[in-house]
Order: sequence, then structure tokens, then C-alpha cells
Amino acid sequence: MKENTIKKIWADGGVVVNGWLTIPSSFSAEVMAHQGFDSLVVDLQHGAVDYQAAVTLLQAICTTSVIPMARVPWNDPAVLMKILDAGAFGVVCPMVNNAEQAEALVRACKYPPRGYRSCGPVRAKYSCGADYLDHADDNTLVIPQIETAQALDNLDRILEVPGIDAVYVGPADLAMALGSHARSGQDDAVVLAAKKKVAETCMRHKRIAGIHTPSAEAAFKAVEEGYRFVTIASDERFLAAKASAEVNSIRNAMRRR
Amino acid sequence: MKENTIKKIWADGGVVVNGWLTIPSSFSAEVMAHQGFDSLVVDLQHGAVDYQAAVTLLQAICTTSVIPMARVPWNDPAVLMKILDAGAFGVVCPMVNNAEQAEALVRACKYPPRGYRSCGPVRAKYSCGADYLDHADDNTLVIPQIETAQALDNLDRILEVPGIDAVYVGPADLAMALGSHARSGQDDAVVLAAKKKVAETCMRHKRIAGIHTPSAEAAFKAVEEGYRFVTIASDERFLAAKASAEVNSIRNAMRRR
Amino acid sequence: MKENTIKKIWADGGVVVNGWLTIPSSFSAEVMAHQGFDSLVVDLQHGAVDYQAAVTLLQAICTTSVIPMARVPWNDPAVLMKILDAGAFGVVCPMVNNAEQAEALVRACKYPPRGYRSCGPVRAKYSCGADYLDHADDNTLVIPQIETAQALDNLDRILEVPGIDAVYVGPADLAMALGSHARSGQDDAVVLAAKKKVAETCMRHKRIAGIHTPSAEAAFKAVEEGYRFVTIASDERFLAAKASAEVNSIRNAMRRR
Amino acid sequence: MKENTIKKIWADGGVVVNGWLTIPSSFSAEVMAHQGFDSLVVDLQHGAVDYQAAVTLLQAICTTSVIPMARVPWNDPAVLMKILDAGAFGVVCPMVNNAEQAEALVRACKYPPRGYRSCGPVRAKYSCGADYLDHADDNTLVIPQIETAQALDNLDRILEVPGIDAVYVGPADLAMALGSHARSGQDDAVVLAAKKKVAETCMRHKRIAGIHTPSAEAAFKAVEEGYRFVTIASDERFLAAKASAEVNSIRNAMRRR
Amino acid sequence: MKENTIKKIWADGGVVVNGWLTIPSSFSAEVMAHQGFDSLVVDLQHGAVDYQAAVTLLQAICTTSVIPMARVPWNDPAVLMKILDAGAFGVVCPMVNNAEQAEALVRACKYPPRGYRSCGPVRAKYSCGADYLDHADDNTLVIPQIETAQALDNLDRILEVPGIDAVYVGPADLAMALGSHARSGQDDAVVLAAKKKVAETCMRHKRIAGIHTPSAEAAFKAVEEGYRFVTIASDERFLAAKASAEVNSIRNAMRRR
Amino acid sequence: MKENTIKKIWADGGVVVNGWLTIPSSFSAEVMAHQGFDSLVVDLQHGAVDYQAAVTLLQAICTTSVIPMARVPWNDPAVLMKILDAGAFGVVCPMVNNAEQAEALVRACKYPPRGYRSCGPVRAKYSCGADYLDHADDNTLVIPQIETAQALDNLDRILEVPGIDAVYVGPADLAMALGSHARSGQDDAVVLAAKKKVAETCMRHKRIAGIHTPSAEAAFKAVEEGYRFVTIASDERFLAAKASAEVNSIRNAMRRR
Repeated sequence: MKENTIKKIWADGGVVVNGWLTIPSSFSAEVMAHQGFDSLVVDLQHGAVDYQAAVTLLQAICTTSVIPMARVPWNDPAVLMKILDAGAFGVVCPMVNNAEQAEALVRACKYPPRGYRSCGPVRAKYSCGADYLDHADDNTLVIPQIETAQALDNLDRILEVPGIDAVYVGPADLAMALGSHARSGQDDAVVLAAKKKVAETCMRHKRIAGIHTPSAEAAFKAVEEGYRFVTIASDERFLAAKASAEVNSIRNAMRRR
Repeated sequence: MKENTIKKIWADGGVVVNGWLTIPSSFSAEVMAHQGFDSLVVDLQHGAVDYQAAVTLLQAICTTSVIPMARVPWNDPAVLMKILDAGAFGVVCPMVNNAEQAEALVRACKYPPRGYRSCGPVRAKYSCGADYLDHADDNTLVIPQIETAQALDNLDRILEVPGIDAVYVGPADLAMALGSHARSGQDDAVVLAAKKKVAETCMRHKRIAGIHTPSAEAAFKAVEEGYRFVTIASDERFLAAKASAEVNSIRNAMRRR
Repeated sequence: MKENTIKKIWADGGVVVNGWLTIPSSFSAEVMAHQGFDSLVVDLQHGAVDYQAAVTLLQAICTTSVIPMARVPWNDPAVLMKILDAGAFGVVCPMVNNAEQAEALVRACKYPPRGYRSCGPVRAKYSCGADYLDHADDNTLVIPQIETAQALDNLDRILEVPGIDAVYVGPADLAMALGSHARSGQDDAVVLAAKKKVAETCMRHKRIAGIHTPSAEAAFKAVEEGYRFVTIASDERFLAAKASAEVNSIRNAMRRR
Repeated sequence: MKENTIKKIWADGGVVVNGWLTIPSSFSAEVMAHQGFDSLVVDLQHGAVDYQAAVTLLQAICTTSVIPMARVPWNDPAVLMKILDAGAFGVVCPMVNNAEQAEALVRACKYPPRGYRSCGPVRAKYSCGADYLDHADDNTLVIPQIETAQALDNLDRILEVPGIDAVYVGPADLAMALGSHARSGQDDAVVLAAKKKVAETCMRHKRIAGIHTPSAEAAFKAVEEGYRFVTIASDERFLAAKASAEVNSIRNAMRRR
Repeated sequence: MKENTIKKIWADGGVVVNGWLTIPSSFSAEVMAHQGFDSLVVDLQHGAVDYQAAVTLLQAICTTSVIPMARVPWNDPAVLMKILDAGAFGVVCPMVNNAEQAEALVRACKYPPRGYRSCGPVRAKYSCGADYLDHADDNTLVIPQIETAQALDNLDRILEVPGIDAVYVGPADLAMALGSHARSGQDDAVVLAAKKKVAETCMRHKRIAGIHTPSAEAAFKAVEEGYRFVTIASDERFLAAKASAEVNSIRNAMRRR
Repeated sequence: MKENTIKKIWADGGVVVNGWLTIPSSFSAEVMAHQGFDSLVVDLQHGAVDYQAAVTLLQAICTTSVIPMARVPWNDPAVLMKILDAGAFGVVCPMVNNAEQAEALVRACKYPPRGYRSCGPVRAKYSCGADYLDHADDNTLVIPQIETAQALDNLDRILEVPGIDAVYVGPADLAMALGSHARSGQDDAVVLAAKKKVAETCMRHKRIAGIHTPSAEAAFKAVEEGYRFVTIASDERFLAAKASAEVNSIRNAMRRR
């Protein structure tokens, strides 16, 4: 099976710089795969992407050595298994709030006897390798999201579930769940404390802390806190930010004329 | 018929800031339509976009007041008519090198008696208005590209063809055609002179000079030369530029750590 | 956030004339959006439409001032959240049979603290407005369907659930659930009594009664009973009805010749 | 090869009632195929349909016994051959103005020695039959459109071209070409005379006259003039007409209340 | 309603030779429909196929007399109802492990009073017949998969659930569930015993035993054991097997040269 | 720029084993890319594939080291340039009958000064390499098809056109053009002589002879005649052949029972 280089980066003590795909185009996905990310997550939850398009995005990523992963819309075995069959090297799963949900997540992602994933790696046996069945359980990552007060409370137990490789903080959801505004995910004291707690708890459990951030600057701050799986914004955010900056730039220049 | 605000901006002496779509996703097109451009051109020539996807991009643009246009792959009546029927408010056409080709272009885009456009505005009669047939000839723009030495030589005659609203310089093609490198489109003396000539000739003919540029800065330079239809890069260029800048930023920060 | 004009019509005591989309084409959706409906529901349950196509249908509707909504296939948070993120101004949800299910429905559709909707309005923040997060809970409609005997029995309690804006009767399902034939939804006494009860109960609770009908005539009858959200047939029904009427008309004329 | 029942209807002296598809959905195409038409033309010229979608429309038609055909965007061998390979039982071709163009059209549609159609009936060998190559030339229809003054003048010579089965009048284009308004295609005296001439000339040449009409009533009038291939409106026209009629009906009823 | 010829073959004591579709192309589906299978199952679980593509595959099958069915990703009423509405003549459902799950499966697939399937056969009323509602419950097959030890233990009770027409063995999953390797599904003694047990139990209950096999040879072995619904490999397996055989053949020939 | 390994194989005196894609699915294309071919041609002429799908097929091939190419529908600069921009490493072009057409073909495929290809390698600059513009002319193959008597007569002059890397025989078309039956492409004496002539003429001109064949056996025969670019059947042919063989096998076994 093709090596999951994310695991190697982590084993070497490094940080994975991750990108996020919400645009349902295999062309924009391929463009993103050439920008230097270690991995790219196809977002089937909030992204404008459903399974059929997601397959083409995973293929586009596989034209490079970037590791393709997916965020599923929910902790649902049907979707988890289907996107793994499509060649995702790992899944990020929203709203995992306790150990039972984390175990259910793991079991849906692992073949018997570790779980009950159904056998049929229709694309993975090509894109990941003909020996996929022998190595998939060890090489595909299971990453629950921590985005509620309940999940924070249960973090130790979630991290103790065998098969959980990392957790992933969704700051906007976490902020809202903690009574703050979604946009305050970067500065509210309660949220900052929660993010710090996740990093520290993960280090104590020798698990990886991951987080969504709006910028390289914020991502680097997270790295300094101990996060080792950091996402910077998304394709849509990059597109909007650069386009509006350029438009504003010329409009300002013309105004000053 | 819905007003073509490009014509109004030009009538008022203003400059149209145009965006460029090469990603075949109606979602990324809608994102682009919210960034402040006056118009957006769906690129069916070099973009990764064909007719069927182009319709959804035109629709996405029409969720805003931005004016949707299209670049066709070639001076071909079948494609010109079909994309106008789909609601494009104007067409940019590559490689128009003389007055005969410019006339052929115009005739394919105008209904009898001005041309031979076939009647069947399948989407335009909804998106542009129920009275489309009465106003389409006056409200849809015809914009040939000037990108060869021959076209430069014939520029006066091209601009004299009735129905030509503007011309559009493709600097990379023009640079190659003039014996320079594609990437030198912004600095080679011969190319700069050609670009200047286009702007001046257009002003003399009271026609609009348009140009493709790689950045707001370059676009503003073109405005100062007299260009009044300036495109800044493209969706794909914005996406790649911002993504790579952010990745480089965090990688540099981590390296310095 | 863009105004949800359905709420305004209801506040003014008016009736919302709603259309129904089952054809997975953004072109036919745009055609429907120009026929005078107040709102259009993209049917992801029985329609031949899945999420990826639904996004383009929602975009097509947004080229006009018609309000776009969606019917989800089931009371499933993954789908509810995803279609709201895609810009639906409201959701119709099948088979809501008691207050618990209605509460679950509301909670999936509202952000904390009112519910647990996850934050990521990927298209809605463009199509509905940049301040979407601040107004979405108040501006997006939650409409459970009443289509079983159990739902009828629990109607008072369903209507008391905070966040329920309206209920929607599916006459064919209701008829079958009440032991009648699906096609008798317009005339069976038991079904007629049930429909009357829904209208009256809604009025008592100051909630809106909605219903699917096969024709303008049936819709008007419902209005006279107190229904203020009435759907007339669907795109597919219109297409089939008009096409067969025209074919029959010429075949009869030719036969008489 | 599956029988082309259009030819049989014509051989028996009958009239073919044809439908027109402009919506790029295989579902709406299948709905149309169940409404009683003898044949359906997928419109690749003015319809919102390109090749890739057209294949699925042709498949949808083939779930019934209705004969699938296509209108191509232009007299272009690449497109003609490709849509025939996809299983169209005939092609309607716009803007054929003289015998040379008619001959070019025929030659692109027929295998050697009658023409130069390239061999590769990728779908047709399944949908039309394994012996397709032996019968295609005789069983697929070639139908040029008559929609200019020049075409009217050359009608005799066009009809004498071997391989031309029928001609097809586009009244809107013909009206515009004759100096009238597109919408006057049903009543302008010059256009009416032209339509009459086409019918009579076809009968004299023992060829079939075809025409696009807006309604069963207009189609029947054409039949009485001798047209034996009559199209009634289109899927989009049916959808819009029925939807707006129903909306107007309930709005009027509510206004009168 | 169109006859479900699978039921007739079974009533006549025959064996149904079934094909399996995992490629999301209506063209490859149509190719498969011409190769002599009695039925074809569109695989929405492990296949690279989601609902929107599945509709076009079902249509492609319906261009022939082959019976179209679907495997759903999970025992989920939303998906079961939606694919039946799309015209599947039966559903195969993975991981049904006890009578309760089998009953839930049946109830989702049958209209009241036998179940709670919602009424809206959007495509089925065309492709299966206008009287679909009257006959669907009797004509659409419900086929749970037996692929765990628990399911084997509960087989008698599963087969006693009214509405279960057949069961379907997934040998790879069953092998893994029984502690063997997925690839040993054809030869491990435990698995072979389990497969034998399923065949015998089905015969005792006068129900049909179905099974997935890798080849005609293996399928025939299953027939000899009493299986009467046998799938041979899949479109993807056929494509890969034949392509690699041909490539190996010429490479070997060239090597020997 | 990524190496075009086809050129290397030829430089080393080897034979390129080529596959052919007619199914518009990126999944089946990826399956084909894992079967051992040196290159794969996406067939936009007779295949059921148009540009938008073709991009995803090219991407699927690029997940492996197989070289992606395309056959265009016609000698048309718009299509040639667009598919090269999409990352095809070479184009096969049908019906090139003389040196003028061959020169036109080359000029559309080469940048100035060698031709007039327009600059905008939207996907190629990612998939082929950032230095694409500097190497594309040397690394992308131009391969006209020889499939008429006229082309055979002009073969020497076609091969003398600078920029022609190889020619490609379409036996079915050639057979028909020479007055034989399409299916006789493998055995008719006139066709065999023509194929032999092409191989010999190419060797004399130190150009590569390519040919379409129905099987490994026929391909190997061509290799023995001097052909060094041999295509074996196609994805659709493989799928149909293997599926029907397996179905026939079990039906025969059951009949013998």
C-alpha cells in the first residue's frame, strides 16, 4: 500500500500542513494539490461537495504525492465506508462528543475483527495499492472533531479509544457551543483556553491535535501551542480573499488617480 | 432587457474591472461574483470549462448584478450563437486577425438584418428579459482579440467594422506572436509598444481597449495607458497565488522556529 | 441577510404560492423561477435530485427574487445542515410524527444555543448575505410534514415546539396512512377531514398550514380552508400534463380530419 | 437494426408528431418520451444541451419506442458524426442554404461510398442494433433546415440532393431572414407564403416537409398544408406555459375572493 | 406495471444470472445491459456510484429488457425509498443481521399498510408503469445481505420475515466476519460451510439464495449448491481482467520475439 | 516538464502498447490506467466522451505514470488547442488526407513560431510541469490518421511535414474507404496491403507507424509488420467481451446440467 506520509511526518515529530477543499471541481482540487500542502481534506460536510464529485477530487489529488482525506457530513457508517472505499487515506468526523461515538466511528472505519467496515475498496485497491486490505486499518486515519463542551469534557476518554489517531478542533463550532460567537473562535478567552486544553491533552495521550485556522499566521500560533495537524482556511477562502484584495487594490488606485 | 452595465460604465467614461473564470464550478463562479468585479468572463477557450458547465457558471453570476460574458474557443458561429443563447452579455473571440474575420464575428452575433444569428435565446429570454430579441443586438458586446502581428497591422480596419465594441489584448499570445516569450508579456519593449498602440488606436476610433493582466498593479498600469476593460488574472491564478503564499508563510515560520 | 419574503407574506396575512422541483436541471429550475411563484422547493426526497444537483437548482432560483427552499429525504441532521449551508431559506421534512422528532428537526436546523447546527454556511454566506450567522436562525423556515395518523394525533404538541414555523400536509402519504388510496388524497372523506383538522389546528396555534396539491383549483380550495402555503403539482407534472394535452389535441384533430 | 418508425409512418402516408428537448436532464427527457410523441429531437443548437448530456437524453428516449433524433448546432462533420454514433436516428441541421451545403451534410452522415462518415458507432451498435453498419445509411434521416431566403430560392436543388429525406422550416429564423419579426412566424404574409411554398415543393419532390410550431393548433394547420413532420413547442415551452397558467389561475382566484 | 421477470424466472424454478455495476457511466451500464444478464444491480454501497449517477444507470438498463435493481449503502429508509422511486425493481441491503433489521428493511420498502414507504414514485411511475402504486409492493424485491456470524445465526428468523424475497451472501465480508481473509471467500472451509448453510436454509424456507461470485465458474458452483441468484464479478472486474489479459498477452508475445 | 515516455520508448526502438478510452468515467479510466498500458488515448471522436469528461479522464490517467493522450473529433484548432491545454501529451487526428491538412494540424498544435497555438495551458502547466511552455512543442505528439485512399497516396508528403511524429491507421475506416466492409479491416487483401505500405513508408521516413487493432493477437501481428504504436480494442470492447464470455460460460454450464 502507498505510504501515508502524514503518519511518517508525525512519527518524525513534524507538523502536517493541511488544505481544505469545498469547491466541487477536480480542476481546482488539482491546482490546490500543487501548492505545497502535505494533505488535502475534501469537505463533504460544509463543502459544496457530495460523493460523486468527491471521487474526482480525490483522483485530482492523487495526480500528486499529497495525501487525500475527507471530512464526512456525520458519524454515519454508510458515508464513512464509502469515502474510504473511494481512496481517502483518513476521515475527519464532525460532532464526536464521547467515547461511545468515537468507538462507533473507529469500528465503521476498520475491517473485522477491529470493526465492521464492509469489504469493497473499489477505488482504493487501485489508488492505494493492490494490498490495500492488508494495510488499510493501519494506514487510514480516524480523526474525530472536538467541537462541543461535552466533547471537551470527554476528551481523555475519546483519546483513549484505540484507533483514534488525532482529534480536530472546529473553532467556530466550539466557540458557538461554548456560548461565544462563531467568528470569535480566534480570540475569545474561553475558546482559547479550550484550544490550549485540547493541545495539551493530546500531547499527554501521545495523540495528534489538529485544528482549522483562518490563516498561516493563526496556524503557526496553533503549531506553537502543540498542534501538529493544521488546516489553513480553504480553497473558497483563498479564492475570495485574493480576488477581493486585487479588486480593492485597483479600485483604490483608480480612486486616487 | 436587463441593462448591460458595462455599456453604461463605458458611456460614463469609466473603467470596467473584469474577472476571469476557468474553474468549471458554479460554486466558485458565485464566489467570484461576490468580490467586486463589474463583469466576469467564462473562458471556454483556455479555461477548463465547456458549454454545459458554462451555463451553470453564467447562472451563478446572474445571482448577482455582475455582467456575465464568455470567451469562445474560436471564431465559430455554432459556439458564438450557443453561448449568447445561454445568456452571455458579450463574447470575447480569440485570434481575430483582419476585418473579414471581425465582420464574420459580428455577423454570427447579430440577428438579421445585421447578421445571421439564429433565433432561439433559450436561457437569454429568461435571464436577460422577455424582450431579448428586440434589444440583444444593441446590448451584447462583440470583442475580438488582438494577439498577432497581423491583427496589429489590421487594427484600424478591424475597429472600423460596425458592431465591434472593443478589442482585447492577450499579452502572452501577442508576445509569442511578436517573437518574444509568453511570460515577457509585461516587459518586452516590442510588446509594450504594441499594447500602447492598441490603446491609442482604440481611443482614436472611440472604441474600448481591453487587456488581460496578471495583477491589479499591471491592470492599473493599463488603465493609465487608456485601457478601459481590464481583466485581473483568473480564479485559478488567485487560488494558486493565495494558497501558495499561505503555505510558504507557515513553512517559513516553522523553519525559523 | 436577504429578506425571507415568505415570512413577510405570512406576516401580512397572505398566501404563499409555492412551486416544486423534481427535475435535476438548473435550466428547468430557472424557467420555473420565472413563472410567478413566491417560493420553490427543491425536492430531495421524491425528486430525481441529489445534493450536488440541488446546489445548482438553488443557484438558478437565486437569479430571481423567488425564495429557494428544499425538502430533505429524511429527518437527518447531516442532510438538513448541508442543504441549509447551500442556501435553502427553509426545509420541509417528511414523516415527522411527534414532538420529539419535531424538536430534533428544529435543533438540527438552529445554531447553538437553540440547537446544534454546525457552523459552515459555505454558499449561504454569499447567497443569503455576509451576516448570515446572525440572522439564519430567525430567517430559515422549519416545516415538518404531517402525513401519518400518529402525526395527526400529535399535531398540537408538534405545533407547540419552538422553531416550527409551519406544517406541510402530504395528501398522498396521509391518504395511504389513513387506509385510503394514494390517489384519493383529494376526495376521501377521512382525508378531507384530516386536512381540515390540520388547517384549523394551525390557525389555533398561529402557525401556518401548508399542503401539496395537484392543481391551482385544488390549491385554491385549500386556501379557502385556511392553508397559506400551497404547492401546485411540480415541474414534472406540468411538463407531462402540457405535453400530453398538446399531443392529444393534434392527434384528435388529425383523427377527425 | 431497430426499425426507424418515422420512415414507416411516412411510407404509410402519415404524419409524425415530434417533440423537442432543450432541458439537459435525462429525467425530463424520459417524461417527454411517455407523452405520445412519435419522435423526439434533442436540440444541440438552441437547447441548453451539449453532447455529454445529449447521450443521456438519447438513452432516456430509448427506454420507450419513441425515435430519438438530434438537431446539431451547425453543418459540421465532427458533431454530425458524433451524435449519430451516439444513436440518433436522424439529424436536423440548421442553415442549409444551397445544394452544396446539403450535399456536404449528406456526405458527413453517410458511410463510404455514399459519404465519408467515419466508422465508430460506439453507442449506436448497441441501441440501434449489432448490424448497424449495414443499415445505418438507409435508416438514419438527414433533414436540413430551410430558414433563409437563399434556402427558399435553392429549395428545388436542395431537395434533389440524394440522401435528403426531409426539410425542416424554422419559422422564427425564416421570418427574420425575410425581414419580418421573429415572433411573426405564424402570421406574416411573406412567411406564410414561404411556408406554403416549402410544403408544396416537398410534395412535388416526394420529400417530407417538416416545421417547428408553437402549439398543437399551429401544428395541425401545418398538417393541413401538407407538412408531415410537425414539432410542437418544446419541453421548456410546455413547462413554462403550464406553470404560469396554474400560477395565474390561483392568483386570479385569490384576487377575486 | 412492467413485469419483474426475475420473479417469473424464480417461479419457473430457474436461476437468475445477475451483473453488477460500479462504474458511474450510463454508457458502460448500457453496454453491460446488452451482454445477456437477466438483471443488473447498481451498487451504491461499494460502487463508485451515487444517487444522481444511479438514475442514469437505471435508465440505461431500461433501454433493454434487463431488470434494474440497486444495492443501497445501508439499511436507511431515505436511500431505500429514493432508489425505489427511481425505478429499481428491487434492493439489496448490506449488513442485515437479525429479524428486526430485516423487518425495518421491509417496512421501508413497502407502502402502507405493509410498511411506511412514502408515496412519490417520480421515475418509477414512468419506467415501471402508470399503475405502479397498485403493484409495487408485490413486484419489487427486498434482499438483505447475509455477511456476519450474527446474520448466519439469525438466518431462519430473517427468512421468516414477510416480504423478504431472497438473501444475498457477500463472501468477502462473510469471510472477514468469520475470522478468515477477505480473499478466502471462495475456499476457506468455514466460509464454504456458511455458504452451504445459507443455500439449504433458503430452500427449506422456500426463499431464494443469492450470492456474489468472482467468475462464471464460481457462480456455477453456487448454482449447483442451490443458489438461484448469482452475480458474476462486476463491470470493473471485467474491464480490468480483460485489459490486463490482453496487455500481458502482447507483452509476452513481444518478449518471446 | 514531465517526460513523455512514449518518445523514450520509440527512441529506444521499442513498441508502445496503447489503450483506448470511450467510457466517460474517471473511475473506469483509472482502472484502465492500472492494467499495464504505456499510454491511453481518450477518444473524443467516436468515444462517448466530450471535453468536460475528458479532463477528468486525463486526470485519472495522471494518477499513474501512463501517458495521457487524446483523439480529437476533427482537424479543428479550437479542439486541438483545448485538449492540449488540458494536459494531453499528444493528439491523434482523424481524416488527415494530404500534406496541407497535416501542416494545418501541426500548426494548431505548436506555439509560435512553429505554429499558432494560443497560450493558456490551464491544466498542462500543473500536470505536465511549470516549464510547460518551454518544452511543450517538443514533448507533445502530433499523429494524423491515415484512413482514406487519398491519405495513402499522399503518405510520403504527409510524413515529410515537420512536426508529424507518427501516423495512425484506422482499419475500419480505411477498409470502407477502399471499398471493403468495415469489419474486414483485419483480412481483406487490399486493406492488408495498405497497412503494410503504411508500416514500410513510415520506416523509410523514420517515423512511427501506429494502428488500431481488435486484440493482442492482431496487435502483435502489426508489431511484426513494423508498427510501433499499437492500440488494443478499447475499454468498452474489453467490458463487453469479458461480460458476454462469462455470461455465455455460465449459461452453457447450466444448459449442460
